Amino acid sequence: MTSRLEDLSPPGALLGAVNAEAIGVEIYGLIAELFPICRSVAGDGVRETLRRMQRAIPLTIHEVPTGTQVFDWTIPREWNIREAYIRNEAGERVVDFRHNNLHVMNYSVAVRATLELAELRKHIFTLPEQPDVIPYRKSYYEPAWGFCMTHRAMLALPEGRYEVVIDASHDDGSLSYGEYLHRGALEDEVLLSAHICHPSLANDNCSGLALLALLGKRISRMQTRYSYRFVFAPTTIGAIAWLARNQHETSRVKHGLVVTCVGDGGGPTYKKSRRGNAFIDRVAAHVLRHAARSPVVLDFSPIGYDERQYGSPGFDLPVGVFQRSLFGTFPEYHTSADNLEFVRPEHLASSYRMIGDILDVLEQDFRPRSTCMHGEPQLGRHGLFERESPGGAGAASNLAMLWVLSGADGQTSLFEIAERADLPFADLLAAARRLQAHGLLEADGAAPIVSA
Amino acid sequence: MTSRLEDLSPPGALLGAVNAEAIGVEIYGLIAELFPICRSVAGDGVRETLRRMQRAIPLTIHEVPTGTQVFDWTIPREWNIREAYIRNEAGERVVDFRHNNLHVMNYSVAVRATLELAELRKHIFTLPEQPDVIPYRKSYYEPAWGFCMTHRAMLALPEGRYEVVIDASHDDGSLSYGEYLHRGALEDEVLLSAHICHPSLANDNCSGLALLALLGKRISRMQTRYSYRFVFAPTTIGAIAWLARNQHETSRVKHGLVVTCVGDGGGPTYKKSRRGNAFIDRVAAHVLRHAARSPVVLDFSPIGYDERQYGSPGFDLPVGVFQRSLFGTFPEYHTSADNLEFVRPEHLASSYRMIGDILDVLEQDFRPRSTCMHGEPQLGRHGLFERESPGGAGAASNLAMLWVLSGADGQTSLFEIAERADLPFADLLAAARRLQAHGLLEADGAAPIVSA
Amino acid sequence: MTSRLEDLSPPGALLGAVNAEAIGVEIYGLIAELFPICRSVAGDGVRETLRRMQRAIPLTIHEVPTGTQVFDWTIPREWNIREAYIRNEAGERVVDFRHNNLHVMNYSVAVRATLELAELRKHIFTLPEQPDVIPYRKSYYEPAWGFCMTHRAMLALPEGRYEVVIDASHDDGSLSYGEYLHRGALEDEVLLSAHICHPSLANDNCSGLALLALLGKRISRMQTRYSYRFVFAPTTIGAIAWLARNQHETSRVKHGLVVTCVGDGGGPTYKKSRRGNAFIDRVAAHVLRHAARSPVVLDFSPIGYDERQYGSPGFDLPVGVFQRSLFGTFPEYHTSADNLEFVRPEHLASSYRMIGDILDVLEQDFRPRSTCMHGEPQLGRHGLFERESPGGAGAASNLAMLWVLSGADGQTSLFEIAERADLPFADLLAAARRLQAHGLLEADGAAPIVSA
Repeated sequence: MTSRLEDLSPPGALLGAVNAEAIGVEIYGLIAELFPICRSVAGDGVRETLRRMQRAIPLTIHEVPTGTQVFDWTIPREWNIREAYIRNEAGERVVDFRHNNLHVMNYSVAVRATLELAELRKHIFTLPEQPDVIPYRKSYYEPAWGFCMTHRAMLALPEGRYEVVIDASHDDGSLSYGEYLHRGALEDEVLLSAHICHPSLANDNCSGLALLALLGKRISRMQTRYSYRFVFAPTTIGAIAWLARNQHETSRVKHGLVVTCVGDGGGPTYKKSRRGNAFIDRVAAHVLRHAARSPVVLDFSPIGYDERQYGSPGFDLPVGVFQRSLFGTFPEYHTSADNLEFVRPEHLASSYRMIGDILDVLEQDFRPRSTCMHGEPQLGRHGLFERESPGGAGAASNLAMLWVLSGADGQTSLFEIAERADLPFADLLAAARRLQAHGLLEADGAAPIVSA
Repeated sequence: MTSRLEDLSPPGALLGAVNAEAIGVEIYGLIAELFPICRSVAGDGVRETLRRMQRAIPLTIHEVPTGTQVFDWTIPREWNIREAYIRNEAGERVVDFRHNNLHVMNYSVAVRATLELAELRKHIFTLPEQPDVIPYRKSYYEPAWGFCMTHRAMLALPEGRYEVVIDASHDDGSLSYGEYLHRGALEDEVLLSAHICHPSLANDNCSGLALLALLGKRISRMQTRYSYRFVFAPTTIGAIAWLARNQHETSRVKHGLVVTCVGDGGGPTYKKSRRGNAFIDRVAAHVLRHAARSPVVLDFSPIGYDERQYGSPGFDLPVGVFQRSLFGTFPEYHTSADNLEFVRPEHLASSYRMIGDILDVLEQDFRPRSTCMHGEPQLGRHGLFERESPGGAGAASNLAMLWVLSGADGQTSLFEIAERADLPFADLLAAARRLQAHGLLEADGAAPIVSA
Repeated sequence: MTSRLEDLSPPGALLGAVNAEAIGVEIYGLIAELFPICRSVAGDGVRETLRRMQRAIPLTIHEVPTGTQVFDWTIPREWNIREAYIRNEAGERVVDFRHNNLHVMNYSVAVRATLELAELRKHIFTLPEQPDVIPYRKSYYEPAWGFCMTHRAMLALPEGRYEVVIDASHDDGSLSYGEYLHRGALEDEVLLSAHICHPSLANDNCSGLALLALLGKRISRMQTRYSYRFVFAPTTIGAIAWLARNQHETSRVKHGLVVTCVGDGGGPTYKKSRRGNAFIDRVAAHVLRHAARSPVVLDFSPIGYDERQYGSPGFDLPVGVFQRSLFGTFPEYHTSADNLEFVRPEHLASSYRMIGDILDVLEQDFRPRSTCMHGEPQLGRHGLFERESPGGAGAASNLAMLWVLSGADGQTSLFEIAERADLPFADLLAAARRLQAHGLLEADGAAPIVSA
């Protein structure tokens, strides 16, 4: 085994180097397919979602039976819903699950009753400050039922009696999650995870599911340095179930990302792993800094997504979160406005590229050693020096080469040089490949760089 | 011995959790009692002050004889003064020590003479920029005499002859300081020190004396982790005398605070110990950050109070300074305007609370270990989860618990978690106690945390 | 051997303490003498420059033969030029090398031809944005010829035929560099280096040559702690030649400065060594901070002067760059406006003083140990305390003494105390000498401080 860059992937086969238009459209297409499905913490919705994703990525679907103890938690019953509506005295459905699955509080118990408006309203949830959107609401761990609707529609309901029907079942069954392991040259793994439990919310998290599925499709066809593990699981309990079933293999995870809300135009936002100084944290901060005008890098906190579980003290895996707008900060968050209009192919493409750039550092980083460490090499003699630069050696093409040569002491990795130079890793990688091709650079040692 | 919090003090017995109104009034009352006494570097004024403080705190009064060598210094003679005045030709006392002991330059030699105004003025000190206040002035180490008065009164003195009398004595005797040691579970000590040599200046330092006396009263009735040593000594030479007499026991001092000027509404100000990164420095910065809108944390410098002596290189004790307004920065400083109007019960109470909060960290910090380290515990199942929070897990009451659980790896102290969470230590302590009560947290190891 | 300051140099013999007016005039005088010489990468111009510098500093002139391989480079042929001009049809010289040696592209091949204006213009270089200055241009490694002139003069050339003559030769010979080693008490060396290849550019780098020559003159007459090595070599290849010839002795270089562009009123600018945290980097940042209102401290980058070669990974010498205005940022840079009007004696003097201040730290730093570590000494008793200071101990003269005493634990160097106190090193050195004279301070250990 060797760390020469070219051995594992041909020059140019960078995950961050993609046809942005094509990949954006492809991710968007998958989102559109997943969007209408009514998912929940467990049930057919998740299963159907995983099955459709299997067309892109060779997922294994795991089933964890209801009642299974996973650490402090117990796998709940499946929730499956057939129909749900509120019907007025005229027999008209004033709210209908068929129009939008957000209309039913997720995981509602079944109900079939006729109620006065006043009584019904206790079970109706709206957003008075956003009177035209339906809120997303769930009640996984307390038995309850409810409907969600726009505030305006709720106000328009006349007094009277209403028939309410939620034809749903809570049955023993299993919680489903999808997993795919791509084997690379190393057993060391990169964990890529997205939550799969939300119903029709496009950004949160059809976008994460679709992006990772298509990234996985691409990776599955490549030879990589790292192994890549993709996990698509219901938030919190799904991640905990995965951790419980893989407790003794998690030490293979050297880097990881939770991927969610990647289709809007905000951010990008990176939230650091619990370790706070993991290699992935440095790499993500570096990539975002060079990819966007105003990236946001947040410290870890125990509020968020499944990085909370991966980073729980018993595991402390180096897993951060990649998002565009930070969850909870955009008005569309957890409402019917998080729909297929809200996510855009161009934002999906740029998210894909940033995640690819991050993985490219993991894949391509190595410790270059200059073959000419004493003084600079005479780049002009090697045909490598761009003469026509104002101010002498200042041309950008020269600058990247000079940084690589200056740092290439065999102990410093190319990524560390990129951090110091404050230049994109990809630029230094291109320069390194050029120098290597001219015999001025070699990779140091046989083993790829894996942070402890 | 164990570090379980409850073993040493009952829940709620936090020094920072006090009835603010009551403690403010109580401290103010003691200030009012100490204020009129004419203190100096050595003499009956200090002794009388210590005796009155003994009603609150069981002080031992130590006497160091005149002439004793303490490191580079020699204990001076006592100064005792009976009366002092300037009398005009009409026999009226135009300046009288009985009205304000600042009128006499502290430690003045005796004088009895009749002088022309021009000659007298060479011995009169005023503040032209603050024409209505009397300055505080002393001359400990050069024999001299003088009067201090308002600039306006000085200007109003007509030409003529004046009788001046300072009936004071410099006699062999002793320098007095007060000391109280409260024994805790540990021999490790917290040093709390205030200077006692200033005459009628309410903030500087009747306020520090009174606050510490009443804090000592409270601590004397508690079971504590640390031992607490209170020292009330004349500034510089008093601290040096204490150090000289306790030279080989000072290594027990693990944390310390010099307390002075704690009754005005400024600051709060914390000046770091000479070490600069002592645990007390981190704790004080944390507490002030959460207790006040614009706290000031200053680096160590060799200008100030007795932290200079405690922090001299031969000792290098981790002793910082707690003040409200920084000394020398408020116009009342070292003038008759530093009087009983200048200090306020509410400021004394908030100073007391902040110092209490600092000590609470020392007392209560421990290394929590989650009993449920793999994934988060299901807080809802344990009756610990506050559901009704906008945005999911974001409620403040949940947040503190989640931070504790996330940090509770058995290696990180609760204070370190509080620093990282940027939440008040007391909030995390409350959350930790709640989790402990539900069996989700235990204290790690038997020994309390003592920073080296 | 001992580190007592007085042993090596008498008090007051600080390099930074100079008669500014005298030294400024002296440096300017040498610049004026060196300015007219037409230097290049190799040839008589460099030799003549070194010979004139020998009147100030006892340089050895080394010759490296044409064709010698020095690491990745080959020593080029000498370039010597006798005359060069462009003559119009009327026989008038419209451009003449005799008026300004910038008129000829440096290292031009010989040419003798008659050309139409259109053809001639392909060989003429101007600066359209600065139409009244002649650019400096060179072509060391590609055979070419050219003239440089003001844009205005170029535009004024009428159509017609022009005779062009460059009477220059490229012959085997040698590349010359000058070197002087002043032996101090230690074999450890301070490297001071300036490039010598530029023709008539006063700031870049007659100023650096002249300043270092006169600094060397002064050092040559002193007893110093360090040995001082002065190197005056053509940029890049000259430094590489010196490195190649001294490859196994470079580890003696403990600190170093490249000195260039020190005669203008900008900056001062310090560029850190490749190490980034070398002692010289800290010292230079400290000195500049106290010497100038808005100093600029830059991180290392592989663009610049010979710090690139000294800092190449095979050597990694701790060599930074001292400049006034950063190269490339002032409009006079590499033009005929970088002339004897542009550099001023007062700026040369302040550059000399700052470099002297830097070297003074290297020479004078030591680890003071207070003889009175327990509590402060009673400065008043020792006649060292300035009483008349507002606010007590705050007088500047006291402050420096108190900082020295507070830091003098025998482990901390005076420079480290100066960094912490944020006071000029020279002030603390004066205080230390005063305390030492009064028996309150001693130097710790026998060995001078040499950073690894």
